[in-house]
Amino acid sequence: MFESAEIGHSIDKETFGAEVPALREALLEAQYELKQQSRFPVIVLINGIEGAGKGETVKLLNEWMDPRLIEVRTFDQQTDEELARPPAWRYWRALPPKGRMGVFFGNWYSQMLEGRVHGRFKDAVLDQAIAGAERLEQMLCDEGALIIKFWFHLSKKQMKARLKALKQDPLHNWRISPLDWQQSETYDRFVRFGERVLRRTSRDYAPWHVVEGIDPHYRSLAVGRILLESLQAALANKPRKHEGNVAPLGRSIDDKSLLGALDMTLRLDKRDYEEQLVTEQARLAGLLRNKHMRKHALVAVFEGNDAAGKGGAIRRVAAALDPRQYRIVPIAAPTEEERAQPYLWRFWRHIPARGKFTIFDRSWYGRVLVERVEGFCTPADWMRAYGEINDFEEQLRNAGIVVVKFWLSIDQQTQLERFEEREQIPFKRYKITEEDWRNREKWDVYSEAVGDMVDRTSTEIAPWTLVEANDKRWARVKVLRTINQALEEAFAKDKK
Amino acid sequence: MFESAEIGHSIDKETFGAEVPALREALLEAQYELKQQSRFPVIVLINGIEGAGKGETVKLLNEWMDPRLIEVRTFDQQTDEELARPPAWRYWRALPPKGRMGVFFGNWYSQMLEGRVHGRFKDAVLDQAIAGAERLEQMLCDEGALIIKFWFHLSKKQMKARLKALKQDPLHNWRISPLDWQQSETYDRFVRFGERVLRRTSRDYAPWHVVEGIDPHYRSLAVGRILLESLQAALANKPRKHEGNVAPLGRSIDDKSLLGALDMTLRLDKRDYEEQLVTEQARLAGLLRNKHMRKHALVAVFEGNDAAGKGGAIRRVAAALDPRQYRIVPIAAPTEEERAQPYLWRFWRHIPARGKFTIFDRSWYGRVLVERVEGFCTPADWMRAYGEINDFEEQLRNAGIVVVKFWLSIDQQTQLERFEEREQIPFKRYKITEEDWRNREKWDVYSEAVGDMVDRTSTEIAPWTLVEANDKRWARVKVLRTINQALEEAFAKDKK
Repeated sequence: MFESAEIGHSIDKETFGAEVPALREALLEAQYELKQQSRFPVIVLINGIEGAGKGETVKLLNEWMDPRLIEVRTFDQQTDEELARPPAWRYWRALPPKGRMGVFFGNWYSQMLEGRVHGRFKDAVLDQAIAGAERLEQMLCDEGALIIKFWFHLSKKQMKARLKALKQDPLHNWRISPLDWQQSETYDRFVRFGERVLRRTSRDYAPWHVVEGIDPHYRSLAVGRILLESLQAALANKPRKHEGNVAPLGRSIDDKSLLGALDMTLRLDKRDYEEQLVTEQARLAGLLRNKHMRKHALVAVFEGNDAAGKGGAIRRVAAALDPRQYRIVPIAAPTEEERAQPYLWRFWRHIPARGKFTIFDRSWYGRVLVERVEGFCTPADWMRAYGEINDFEEQLRNAGIVVVKFWLSIDQQTQLERFEEREQIPFKRYKITEEDWRNREKWDVYSEAVGDMVDRTSTEIAPWTLVEANDKRWARVKVLRTINQALEEAFAKDKK
Repeated sequence: MFESAEIGHSIDKETFGAEVPALREALLEAQYELKQQSRFPVIVLINGIEGAGKGETVKLLNEWMDPRLIEVRTFDQQTDEELARPPAWRYWRALPPKGRMGVFFGNWYSQMLEGRVHGRFKDAVLDQAIAGAERLEQMLCDEGALIIKFWFHLSKKQMKARLKALKQDPLHNWRISPLDWQQSETYDRFVRFGERVLRRTSRDYAPWHVVEGIDPHYRSLAVGRILLESLQAALANKPRKHEGNVAPLGRSIDDKSLLGALDMTLRLDKRDYEEQLVTEQARLAGLLRNKHMRKHALVAVFEGNDAAGKGGAIRRVAAALDPRQYRIVPIAAPTEEERAQPYLWRFWRHIPARGKFTIFDRSWYGRVLVERVEGFCTPADWMRAYGEINDFEEQLRNAGIVVVKFWLSIDQQTQLERFEEREQIPFKRYKITEEDWRNREKWDVYSEAVGDMVDRTSTEIAPWTLVEANDKRWARVKVLRTINQALEEAFAKDKK
């Protein structure tokens, strides 16, 4: 895999000097076109052998191009805010918006390789990390990102010579860290696992480019050209649309449906309600103060029919708690900054730190509900969202976050009554809009979308709870009880 | 100051029960109106004696109102990301956007009081903190924010009784921290310094409301009503405009001006330039690696005439450095999320952590330049900006951030030549727009604005450097040298 990057590529000074001006101009041109189109972000991943010129090359790119449109990020020591959240959070918060370029040093590949090379885990865990990186990149590319991955290579002999030379150069010897010397000793392992990683993660949508790093002229020109060609190709591309080749989801062939199977007559009388509500609220308050909560966070997702009582249920959950413990994130139309990012970005930014509780009033499921039904995204987009959402929730779960998801379901008659009530009560009239009435006409397509959503995203790690919500009391108690059970199960597993 | 909050106010259960429903409805109504108008944010500060019901009252407000529109924030332990920046950064990042309400526990008042009560500093430092809080609140209010400040009070006797009662209540005794008991011992000091703080920071635009905390019904109703009345008054207000009563800035009464006094013939020949550039770049690279840099951060602001060579100068600065050390923030029109915040917010979000370097390509001075000249804000707005900007930069400086500010100045003839050149060179044509030609016609008003800006914001802590930029070489070397001198001066002070 690295053969052709150990053969001593080089470019002489004259050739280099002659080629650079045109390359620079073309790179600048591409960069401004990228900004003008603001159609996709560019993510450049920098990996490879220490001493192979990673830093120098990026420095040079910043000189050649307009550095105001390039964001260089290194991910070294995690901050305590990052440590309290899933590992990918730090990358999500550093993603460049559409029209800009982000250069990531010390990215997900560096981290998995370092862990494996230093024996912190074995191949199975490395392969998990590889699969995670693949899914992340696939998703970013599907969302439009251009990902360019560079592996700067040196043969073992070249690396040793280079480190020695750097050490003797007083102007540059600050660049070598103790880690670099360590890497010299672990070169063989680094290359071996590097190959495994490259082999599995070089994909048509985000291929690796292995660049021999020994000659500065060669590597600079090579990187500059790859960057230019990738940029130009992406800028010339029409926005990808692939409505055509999406496999259809099967439809129910009898009249049975998940929502139809709910027992909508379930209810609680006032006395039982008040008693159970207080009990469950006290239980929740206790659980959130439990010392196990230090290892966990809680995410509750509320979806449901319009007027199904999401707001009321959320208030009963919140009422149990100190307002300093939770945050409620109401999801409406994305802001301009959110629209310049992959659709999951605006949820990642609200992921709670350990010990905290975030309530999403509507959520990432908008993608497979309203965006699907209203055609705000293509069928290919919402079809892939099921898998992306499962990945997302798995990352939350792996970081100790307990994820509970509610679909509050009411029947059409109940919805009609509540709409009419809302229109009559002054302080409720804000809750009802023309759009609500329009959505009502699409009852059946929404129901179908809900059925598909539950089938495809109700998982062991983050199951859906369907809540019979014709009776608000029943719904509220069921919501609270479900949250409590989920927390207790998570705490019980800690003890094992 | 606290007299009328120690007289045992109380409301009986029946009165309370009778009053609450209408209050709740009105609060909800106001809250939705706030959201609908999205014209200003509401900041509620919660302070006072431990045990006086601060937490309980906010919890109740969250039950009464729609908690989805309220963001409750506590500021306890600073995270390492916060510790690496000026103290106010944590408040700026938590500000609610227009249309929403933020409730701040453990805010700036808590922090100054705690420091003073526990003897970490004396009155002089407390008074500095008080003055800082005043300026912050004045600015927030001028930017439209509604600030409501509550002081929950208890007499000493009431407090002791309350803590004792809480301790005996198994459902609530988790609420008392060791700190609370400590506060019981320091009650007198707390009240004494609290009074000092309240006296000085109760202003027409953001008055304190002292609420006796012993009776839950009384304090809940009192707080609810104050909140409602404040909200209603602000919602009914027309947006404040006070163009009328702005004192005029004096005009130059001869023909001399600051920019006119620059020697625009200053230049460097190519050889001197290349030599000096390399020297200054190496010096900068060395300074940023200096161990003193761990205590500092660097902010460089670039302003100047169109085509004065800001981009080129920034690139020469960046070229000296490892791209992982700096970030360049190009300032264009604010995004939607930025427009929902005070104008300084979008700069606070990019303030570097200690050890880092941020280059602003245009900056907060847009307020007193383009916004002033184009009438994007009222004269009152840009007039107060001078003081606000000085406050802002003082905060940066106090946190160890070295602030250097450049105005790159060219004459009209040079600008014309550069505009024409840009129109002819393909990869430079992105740099010139219709707007640049239009701005050129306003040369004199811009010059006047620049003169005022320098006179009013060139301070000992963050002086302006006017750069004669007809000759790009001269300008670039002067910029680099100025940055280096500023860093060296800061490092020299560390040693003393």
